[in-house]
Amino acid sequence: MKLYRLGENELIQWVTRQIRTDRSVVRGIGDDCAVLRGTGRNLQLFACDMLVEGVHFRRRDPAGAVGWKALAVNVSDIAAMGGLPRHAVVSLGLPRQIPVSFVDGLYRGLCRCAKRYGVNLVGGDTVRAAQVVIDVAILGEVEKGRVVYRAGARVGDTLLVTGRLGGSLRSGRHLRFSPRVREARALTAQARLHAMMDLSDGLRQDLPRICQASGVGAVLEVTKIPRHAGCSIAQALTDGEDFELLIAAAGRDADRLLPWAKRNLPCGLHRIGTVVAAKPHSVVTLVAPKGTKIPSSLAGFQHF
Amino acid sequence: MKLYRLGENELIQWVTRQIRTDRSVVRGIGDDCAVLRGTGRNLQLFACDMLVEGVHFRRRDPAGAVGWKALAVNVSDIAAMGGLPRHAVVSLGLPRQIPVSFVDGLYRGLCRCAKRYGVNLVGGDTVRAAQVVIDVAILGEVEKGRVVYRAGARVGDTLLVTGRLGGSLRSGRHLRFSPRVREARALTAQARLHAMMDLSDGLRQDLPRICQASGVGAVLEVTKIPRHAGCSIAQALTDGEDFELLIAAAGRDADRLLPWAKRNLPCGLHRIGTVVAAKPHSVVTLVAPKGTKIPSSLAGFQHF
Repeated sequence: MKLYRLGENELIQWVTRQIRTDRSVVRGIGDDCAVLRGTGRNLQLFACDMLVEGVHFRRRDPAGAVGWKALAVNVSDIAAMGGLPRHAVVSLGLPRQIPVSFVDGLYRGLCRCAKRYGVNLVGGDTVRAAQVVIDVAILGEVEKGRVVYRAGARVGDTLLVTGRLGGSLRSGRHLRFSPRVREARALTAQARLHAMMDLSDGLRQDLPRICQASGVGAVLEVTKIPRHAGCSIAQALTDGEDFELLIAAAGRDADRLLPWAKRNLPCGLHRIGTVVAAKPHSVVTLVAPKGTKIPSSLAGFQHF
Repeated sequence: MKLYRLGENELIQWVTRQIRTDRSVVRGIGDDCAVLRGTGRNLQLFACDMLVEGVHFRRRDPAGAVGWKALAVNVSDIAAMGGLPRHAVVSLGLPRQIPVSFVDGLYRGLCRCAKRYGVNLVGGDTVRAAQVVIDVAILGEVEKGRVVYRAGARVGDTLLVTGRLGGSLRSGRHLRFSPRVREARALTAQARLHAMMDLSDGLRQDLPRICQASGVGAVLEVTKIPRHAGCSIAQALTDGEDFELLIAAAGRDADRLLPWAKRNLPCGLHRIGTVVAAKPHSVVTLVAPKGTKIPSSLAGFQHF
């Protein structure tokens, strides 16, 4: 069987079943970051994200923006757990004929993002490759009482999302987005969030991941999804690469967070749905006022 | 300017100059691992190594051996600092048409290496790519009193190497080598080593790195280099991918370690040279008994 027939979710599930870890691992494969027991009061977060030319960026994109994105997608994984990014290592696969100016730009972008988010770039590897490949691994930390997993959403919870969705690739926003570290920290300081993740593959693919991890279903009010200008509901659901936060919180906490966010979160916070009991064949139900057009086949981006 | 004209050493030096880190970083870019201040008595080690199809392995190599190597080269980086490997994350770039059996084999090899060396595989990323790319990032730990850097070799030190060198790629040894974790731990328990690194690019390229980091020179007795059967001196110097340990230790410690190693290190430990004062234009001097043939142009493998 060829890999693309298996799909990314199945690949991850199948890998996860094969792996055993020891007691120092609080959470292994399957969340935005691995969670490791530290020696102090904090937990350690560990994750990696690989960008490939032609998939996540194009050679003609500004190298600085590509470098920024390579670290920012990892910082976003730390944000999704409620943590603070600390250290990163960078592996670069580079064609021999690539101009040094491209590599220079790449590092400037990496450094700019590192400085903005307080990340130490502490190591790396550079190897020859047919296409530009950038893999960043990141370490972060989070207080034991403030870590937020994908699993933890409860029936009756309100679903919230930061910022606006849709059109990230087309507009170039995917190359210059701001990971929601400050926003996640502010939210976990205000309330005990039940579940959180960052939206990389689009709501239509990512929301079922929270549902599956939590053993719940969801009702999504599609007209409530905050959209970027010019984006349809379908685009907001499926475009991906928004790197906004998807959150499940108790209804009373959401009621308190929404007005608080109006004053304190410039990116905005929106109620988009409700967590319901799991159903056997439909994890997420889309609802909309009569007359709203929703394409029948909504599917997000699959890597394979 | 094209990248291949700059070279790997220059690229690393140039990147390092641009980067600032905070007080939690004991050692950043430039050693086998980054060294981070932990909260307890131990230091944390952090490194990454990327393998690319056609450079570090071929598609027709056994997938299990490729998976083993992908983790083993990282475990070797931890060994080179005197540490113990703990956790790893794996990013995989995979062509859509690759058989699932290859990916299965890859993970089996990764898991086999993880089990052997006590590494928790805790996360990863899988993306589409034109060629198979495997990047592993690893976390390890080491007691403050036992960490060994590349910098630290002193004039008068004896240079030692574990195992035998040469022919690793040709023989396929590079796909099934054993990282020298146990050996490094045993050696640092016996003596305070001054400098250490693992030999990935060949003695001819790697020894100057210890010299440069330590501000010293070296005299290498080429006939003393332990070679694999059928390997010439030139091959032992330049083939690379041996993943043996290169060590600088005080003469009196080396005198004690060598007979001890005969009883306790099955892979062997050999004296191959001496650390001398730095000279302006020749970091490493090769010496050999009269009549020994040494090719005049000895250069190791350069990635670009």
